[in-house]
Amino acid sequence: MPEKIKEPVDLLIHGGLVVAMDDDFHTYPDGAVAVRGREIAAVGPSAKVQAQVEPQATYDARGQVVMPGLINAHTHAAMTLFRGIADDLALEAWLARIWPLEIQYANAENVTAGAELAFAEMILAGTTAAADMYWQRDATTEAAIRAGFRLVNGSSFIDFTGPDGILPEERLSGAREFFERYRGHDLITPCIQAHATYTASRSALEQISKLAREYDALFITHAAESLTEVATVRERSGKTPIELLDELGLLGSRTLLAHCVHLSDAEISLLAERKTAVAHCPESNLKTGAGIARLPDMLKAGVIIGLGTDGAASNNDLDLWGEMRTAALIQKGVRNDPTVMDARSVVRMATLGGARALGLGERTGSLEPGKAADLITIGLNGLHQSPLYDIYSNLVYAAKSSDVRNVWIDGRQVLRERELLTIDAQRARARVNKIAHDLFGAW
Amino acid sequence: MPEKIKEPVDLLIHGGLVVAMDDDFHTYPDGAVAVRGREIAAVGPSAKVQAQVEPQATYDARGQVVMPGLINAHTHAAMTLFRGIADDLALEAWLARIWPLEIQYANAENVTAGAELAFAEMILAGTTAAADMYWQRDATTEAAIRAGFRLVNGSSFIDFTGPDGILPEERLSGAREFFERYRGHDLITPCIQAHATYTASRSALEQISKLAREYDALFITHAAESLTEVATVRERSGKTPIELLDELGLLGSRTLLAHCVHLSDAEISLLAERKTAVAHCPESNLKTGAGIARLPDMLKAGVIIGLGTDGAASNNDLDLWGEMRTAALIQKGVRNDPTVMDARSVVRMATLGGARALGLGERTGSLEPGKAADLITIGLNGLHQSPLYDIYSNLVYAAKSSDVRNVWIDGRQVLRERELLTIDAQRARARVNKIAHDLFGAW
Repeated sequence: MPEKIKEPVDLLIHGGLVVAMDDDFHTYPDGAVAVRGREIAAVGPSAKVQAQVEPQATYDARGQVVMPGLINAHTHAAMTLFRGIADDLALEAWLARIWPLEIQYANAENVTAGAELAFAEMILAGTTAAADMYWQRDATTEAAIRAGFRLVNGSSFIDFTGPDGILPEERLSGAREFFERYRGHDLITPCIQAHATYTASRSALEQISKLAREYDALFITHAAESLTEVATVRERSGKTPIELLDELGLLGSRTLLAHCVHLSDAEISLLAERKTAVAHCPESNLKTGAGIARLPDMLKAGVIIGLGTDGAASNNDLDLWGEMRTAALIQKGVRNDPTVMDARSVVRMATLGGARALGLGERTGSLEPGKAADLITIGLNGLHQSPLYDIYSNLVYAAKSSDVRNVWIDGRQVLRERELLTIDAQRARARVNKIAHDLFGAW
Repeated sequence: MPEKIKEPVDLLIHGGLVVAMDDDFHTYPDGAVAVRGREIAAVGPSAKVQAQVEPQATYDARGQVVMPGLINAHTHAAMTLFRGIADDLALEAWLARIWPLEIQYANAENVTAGAELAFAEMILAGTTAAADMYWQRDATTEAAIRAGFRLVNGSSFIDFTGPDGILPEERLSGAREFFERYRGHDLITPCIQAHATYTASRSALEQISKLAREYDALFITHAAESLTEVATVRERSGKTPIELLDELGLLGSRTLLAHCVHLSDAEISLLAERKTAVAHCPESNLKTGAGIARLPDMLKAGVIIGLGTDGAASNNDLDLWGEMRTAALIQKGVRNDPTVMDARSVVRMATLGGARALGLGERTGSLEPGKAADLITIGLNGLHQSPLYDIYSNLVYAAKSSDVRNVWIDGRQVLRERELLTIDAQRARARVNKIAHDLFGAW
């Protein structure tokens, strides 16, 4: 009998514990993932996949988990430069400290340096995609492309001249240019953003709503982060931030709201009904004193949830492993119920949940044939990972970002045995340290 | 002029950022620590210390922090074997799962394996001392000695035959033997323990109280961990666990209470007045759904606080860096106040606070001449550590256990550039994995 012709693939990762994070939570103890070009060609037991494909290269992942890359649903990448500059301060003091610094900081060169450090840090921590919001959008976007990192980004409306010197009215044309430039890009998904309902006027929000519909673009904003914000918006508009967004037609399946700490039952139902997604940022919400989001209630209602680190000025790292752990622990503690936020649901939030929140659920977030090859391997040989009873428990409660060994994004390897392949990490670090030192007196 | 005669020392660690964690929070940007025998001989600016000492060996700590080792004020070391075996379960289901397993597990050989893994994990995470409570006390203690690890340990009373087969009445003579054997040991501090006021009878607690006084020994017990415990003790005795311990003469400056999640204002005042210490275990308290201790209130009242990981069955790692971060973040979140639990106070809890809680405040917990040379170095070159504005912020909000590079305990180096010198880590891991696999079906 003639041998069956095998499908040529570029890479076969085999022998690892494959955790697919698909809707059925498939795992393959001796599993394999085949990659062809930018996409996943096959996922399954090693023996089965090996019988189907003819790989150009192989990677032996024994002793490691192979899983989709983590997705950071909300960050301000270039704020790495402010890591630790304003800790343990009340919100007013924090803003009073950060805002004048941003005016000094937010030029393209500095933001490039801060963003590059952020992408390096995220890749080292197994993150393959993020939604970013910051000044100098183009600088961050180009840094992501050079890093080979998947990014959702776009103009962010705010009612005053930004520290980048851009006037409110200039942001609209900028948003259009950004769409035209990056539409269809392999790694970049253009979106449109507003800082928040208390910092963007009704007319700006109306323009944004129109533009987002025109481009069928994801709309991202901060919402219901703090009690002060909710009170401010209510005083001005008679509505909560969520109600105001709904009135303006800005809630829907193409909307991602960061934080959502302070929601009523009705608002949770509304988000679920509108298929609006939430970027849950538990460590930032704790650190800034914003509070604790009603995560189990949102999940129960069916709200799509991704997990975000927020910026390094309020976290202080860009590490979704810590974020997963905090997301799980905090709810058990405040509800006196260890059964809420089980480990598997938490890993889901950081992968497929995040992908769906970013509007990329068809493209990434799980290991399935036809999806982008955004995947990572994590060593299981650390002492803190032994023994292994339940892989989801280990990933949430024991794994560390330093266990991440390899990262591929869109089929391209960007981390090899903890060596960054697309970013000169030491140069990125030195540049950030120099800016921080020269501008703000860091060590 | 004749050269001044320099003091001979064994080791000079120089050039690092020395964070002494003494009462005045001294830091030395280009600092040095000299070690002679088991003790710290000098701490200060590199130039000054170098002028005073003639070292046998030197270590260049540039780009690293040099600080006292972290102190784990409450753990059950050998429970590493149960890491991840019973997650996301209600307390009753957790106990129903763990208890029968302990009966299979708790022989000396297995506990030795579990404890050895724990000491390796703790050393790799920069922990130099711990207070342990578990069956097979001798096995754990001997494992600590072989590891070169500082341990507070002792018989733990409980009202029924333990999974180690020891009858309640046998534990008293065992406690005496343990004191006689380890009194004056360089690394081991014998103490006396009771599991809790709901699992040790009044008569057992009375015997313990007498014995602790006789030996002037530290007394350790779990107290006010869960609402169920408090209600149970109140129903039986008409008193809360804290009130009952006080009645029995078991509160005082030689008492360390683990958890203390549920305390009244009066109980907090009482602990402060009695100089009784608390081992705060925030991640365990969250994960088991016990709740969130009133840490800022306890600190404000002047209660001595150490930080503990608890056992790996309820954490799931033995990593005080995560514990510091959680201790800081959680209080800000539940109090809607980012200024509570500043980073410096949190590092204090994990070092000098823990040493004092363990009754070892004169011996360890800070870098001061005459104290034991229990110290660690932590790399500052990780991307997640850049830039550096405030070292305490970086240590709490950004540093990871994987940044720990070197560890000395009692003057002996036990970790060199992340290589364990006293424990065969791979063997320890393989033994635990085999036991977990053979007994309980781990991977």
